[in-house]
Amino acid sequence: MSESIPPATQFIALPSPFPFKRGGAISDAVLAYETWGTLSPARDNAILILPGLSPNAHAAANAGNGEPGWWEAMLGPGKPIDTHRWFVVCINPLGSCKGSTGAASVNPASGQPYRLDFPDLSIEDGARAAQHLVQGLGIGQLACVIGNSMGGMSALALLLQFPGIARSHINVSGSARALPFSIAIRSLQREAIRLDPNWNQGHYDEHAYPENGMRIARKLGVVTYRSAMEWDGRFGRVRLDSECREDDPFGLEFEVERYLEGHARRFVRTFDPNCYLYLSRSMDWFDAAEYGGGDVMKALASIKLERAMAIGVHTDILFPLQQQEQVADGLRAGGADSEFVALESPQGHDAFLVDIERFGPAIGGFLGKL
Amino acid sequence: MSESIPPATQFIALPSPFPFKRGGAISDAVLAYETWGTLSPARDNAILILPGLSPNAHAAANAGNGEPGWWEAMLGPGKPIDTHRWFVVCINPLGSCKGSTGAASVNPASGQPYRLDFPDLSIEDGARAAQHLVQGLGIGQLACVIGNSMGGMSALALLLQFPGIARSHINVSGSARALPFSIAIRSLQREAIRLDPNWNQGHYDEHAYPENGMRIARKLGVVTYRSAMEWDGRFGRVRLDSECREDDPFGLEFEVERYLEGHARRFVRTFDPNCYLYLSRSMDWFDAAEYGGGDVMKALASIKLERAMAIGVHTDILFPLQQQEQVADGLRAGGADSEFVALESPQGHDAFLVDIERFGPAIGGFLGKL
Repeated sequence: MSESIPPATQFIALPSPFPFKRGGAISDAVLAYETWGTLSPARDNAILILPGLSPNAHAAANAGNGEPGWWEAMLGPGKPIDTHRWFVVCINPLGSCKGSTGAASVNPASGQPYRLDFPDLSIEDGARAAQHLVQGLGIGQLACVIGNSMGGMSALALLLQFPGIARSHINVSGSARALPFSIAIRSLQREAIRLDPNWNQGHYDEHAYPENGMRIARKLGVVTYRSAMEWDGRFGRVRLDSECREDDPFGLEFEVERYLEGHARRFVRTFDPNCYLYLSRSMDWFDAAEYGGGDVMKALASIKLERAMAIGVHTDILFPLQQQEQVADGLRAGGADSEFVALESPQGHDAFLVDIERFGPAIGGFLGKL
Repeated sequence: MSESIPPATQFIALPSPFPFKRGGAISDAVLAYETWGTLSPARDNAILILPGLSPNAHAAANAGNGEPGWWEAMLGPGKPIDTHRWFVVCINPLGSCKGSTGAASVNPASGQPYRLDFPDLSIEDGARAAQHLVQGLGIGQLACVIGNSMGGMSALALLLQFPGIARSHINVSGSARALPFSIAIRSLQREAIRLDPNWNQGHYDEHAYPENGMRIARKLGVVTYRSAMEWDGRFGRVRLDSECREDDPFGLEFEVERYLEGHARRFVRTFDPNCYLYLSRSMDWFDAAEYGGGDVMKALASIKLERAMAIGVHTDILFPLQQQEQVADGLRAGGADSEFVALESPQGHDAFLVDIERFGPAIGGFLGKL
């Protein structure tokens, strides 16, 4: 596998053993993170970013690594998340393969990768690991926790498990619980990986690797991360030049197919398939309602914040806008000054990564009022 | 393979050889169909139904086969398509495996199934086969051609290739051209089949059968045929009883996953994988703009009809409502009394099959005014 851990990634040791919500524990585990800016003497200017399923901790260039990160336009000096003012911490989620301990990590008990011996991962486990990091950095209370996509679930899990850990929260294209359409999509992505004979119940190696399953999973992901509207304008019915086409009678023919192919090729060998399965399933399982006696609004209203914002786009089919509205309403019911921001971005679920023109002012504006 | 051809299916021989738009030809080919009602002495009460990708010709019970069909609630005595008044013909599309000649049929030249030697199938080829049937039944002009989903493309291909073949047209959840989101979905379904080692470049048999590929393709189809809104209400986060769960750590857990599994099991062995590939690709290729010098509206406006209706639902992500609006607008520009009907159905693309409460009055009302 060629999963790359960016240079200058930092690591914090988690308590060992580190028990999981659904049972089991991992030992000698670490959480990977990076930081930007300086923690103030009063330790009151810290922002924690909890990313989606696939990113590493390198959200933007910093002192240790000048390469642009996955949220480069959002984070830095003078940018919406202004590192002149804020001390920003971004993690690689627990269970991932970009530095934090996950199913691809070596199990110290056996000296072999965990693979399917990794315990059942819940969103709450990742949130507890993040809390350990916050504590370890000497931050009593975060000024803000920002969670994107899966990270929006992780942020709610953090706030539900650790009352008072943050003064404010921005939920970016996230949700309080997985709904059946998203569960169906993720279940299908996992099934494509599991049906690949090379998956072999998790016992693949770089020679016999479930590349076909990962390819289908990633392409289906990309289809649901964007929107039909964006693609109409971007690709239309443009066809590939004949020299780009394959000999295969059912091979690539349209530009949109090449776009998906490019995404798949960049992803399949850089993200561990077992880690993907664990993280994907953890999203299906997450349901904030568990913290409200089955009532998701009651759970959200139990979270005490000064300010909150839930933000998303009309064209998101994976975490539809009503889910961000629910988060904003629930946090308002808990007493927060809570905004729901619906953007007209055509880019679907991934808009927060690319439509900085719309997301930047909203996030920067919120932080500016803290 | 156990593709079933319903009893009482009728067949018409196509001209032999039957040339295809993109080159090649098939010999001794047939088109399967069924009929309901009686052709009037003036031969002016005929309705042709062009179905979607997967249905057979048995749209409803009739004299030859009392079993309910796939549009049972829509078609019959006193129903919206009232067989007391109308003589109704429904085909199994050319290229399918439910009676009409397709890639699974025996190539008379070799005595073996065509498999990938079947010529490249276009929507236009299926429309020409349907025209041959109309002519063969002695129908000079159809009172109406109704096309559902892929059949909506076929109906436009029929009207574009055979001016005057119908007085009116109902386009149900169809479109004048494939757009990139739908192309991406279908490309991914085809890739899942092609990546299955058992597909074997089309040379599978019932023992070595691309069941996994077909399973993924069908589940992805079902995901895009319905809507997130419907599933929220129908499945929510309901989990399977523990006795229904598999031992597999990533196996089925939610009701929505069992629903998809049921659909996949019913489909994978009853639809020929090569036929699926050919029909799926023909939809990607279809573009009415070819008949308007690259301008889809000009092409639609070249169709001369007395009346037209394009109908669809807000929750359709595969053939989005704007595409039906475009069809209605284009046909109106050609001089037809043309209606665009947008229904509030939550059932997505497949709503026309299940939401007869909304679709029935619209279709029945249109036909009642003919």
